[in-house]
Amino acid sequence: MEPLQLYDFLPSGNGYKIRLLLTQLGIPFERVEVNITKGETRSPEFLSKNPNGKIPVLEIEPGKYLSESNAIMVYLSEGTEFLPYDRFLRAQVLQWLFFEQYSHEPFIATPRYWISVLGKAEQYKDALEEKHKGGYAALSLMEEHLKTHTFFVAERYTIADICLFAYTHVAHEGGFDLSRFPHIKAWIERVKAESRYISITQEL
Amino acid sequence: MEPLQLYDFLPSGNGYKIRLLLTQLGIPFERVEVNITKGETRSPEFLSKNPNGKIPVLEIEPGKYLSESNAIMVYLSEGTEFLPYDRFLRAQVLQWLFFEQYSHEPFIATPRYWISVLGKAEQYKDALEEKHKGGYAALSLMEEHLKTHTFFVAERYTIADICLFAYTHVAHEGGFDLSRFPHIKAWIERVKAESRYISITQEL
Repeated sequence: MEPLQLYDFLPSGNGYKIRLLLTQLGIPFERVEVNITKGETRSPEFLSKNPNGKIPVLEIEPGKYLSESNAIMVYLSEGTEFLPYDRFLRAQVLQWLFFEQYSHEPFIATPRYWISVLGKAEQYKDALEEKHKGGYAALSLMEEHLKTHTFFVAERYTIADICLFAYTHVAHEGGFDLSRFPHIKAWIERVKAESRYISITQEL
Repeated sequence: MEPLQLYDFLPSGNGYKIRLLLTQLGIPFERVEVNITKGETRSPEFLSKNPNGKIPVLEIEPGKYLSESNAIMVYLSEGTEFLPYDRFLRAQVLQWLFFEQYSHEPFIATPRYWISVLGKAEQYKDALEEKHKGGYAALSLMEEHLKTHTFFVAERYTIADICLFAYTHVAHEGGFDLSRFPHIKAWIERVKAESRYISITQEL
């Protein structure tokens, strides 16, 4: 079988989710770098793969594309140890995945993009305040949950952990202070200890 | 079996998704009204059901709660005609569900909330401009897709349609002009023609 093609941008946490899962599943894939800071996701060629102009995009068969990182995560993990089979547990995984995209990523990923990817902390100073407020709310909710859970769902490592881990463990690159969240920090270490773990900017 | 308890707010599109699907599935449920404009989602009692302080929340068994509207939609539709069984088609449904929560709802639902629920169009005038820009981008993408599709996935009515319909069909209440999108308008009529359809503010 040909390796899967992953349209990706190395610093992206959304891209990293897919890279980490594919690696842990042992599924061969090739990265196609798309530099979002240079408008490469707005080219007609890329838009024909994802009209929403966002990475990651996974080509699962020639000409068959899937976008939205968390949809790709569910697709890849079905039938594996990374997604519970039980209906309610699977729904809880999805609950965290939607939480991540609605209440977490927009507040935690964007400051990191402004500060560490674009290097424009000063320009976005006012907007950062609002983002940090929402981001700390999401982190506080996670901290509370992790006080009584080792992983987010079913007391084991699932795609819920990978999806939340992607931007949480580099939140400091967006100006967040993770030292206020000891349970998150301990969970980050548990995720890093999983077999076949790779780091976010690890060249494959 | 006891009817399911749905913690809900009548004007909410996210709540409406669940109401519409439950009605079309013929599953008995009871609505518990939670007025989000009066801070009722921030009470300790409500936060014990959903620490993220958002409706809808579905109590699927006594003391067993599920939040995030689109996670609830997947939970309820599994094994029914509203969610395809094929793995790639199901992934496409999820792709649209994540698109809705990330690129659609934050831009289309919020202006409606400001203008029609809170009645504060003037106060949010500047923020509205930015929201409309994102909302029109989402609507344009949907319009393009509907030029060659009758429904969003698999050429039949699924939860992808319900989730996108919820806020799209009332987008004008947030100041959007839907007359620019003839294919969306035709799709809205197709959704409304589905059996057991109920309107967004229909008392049950």
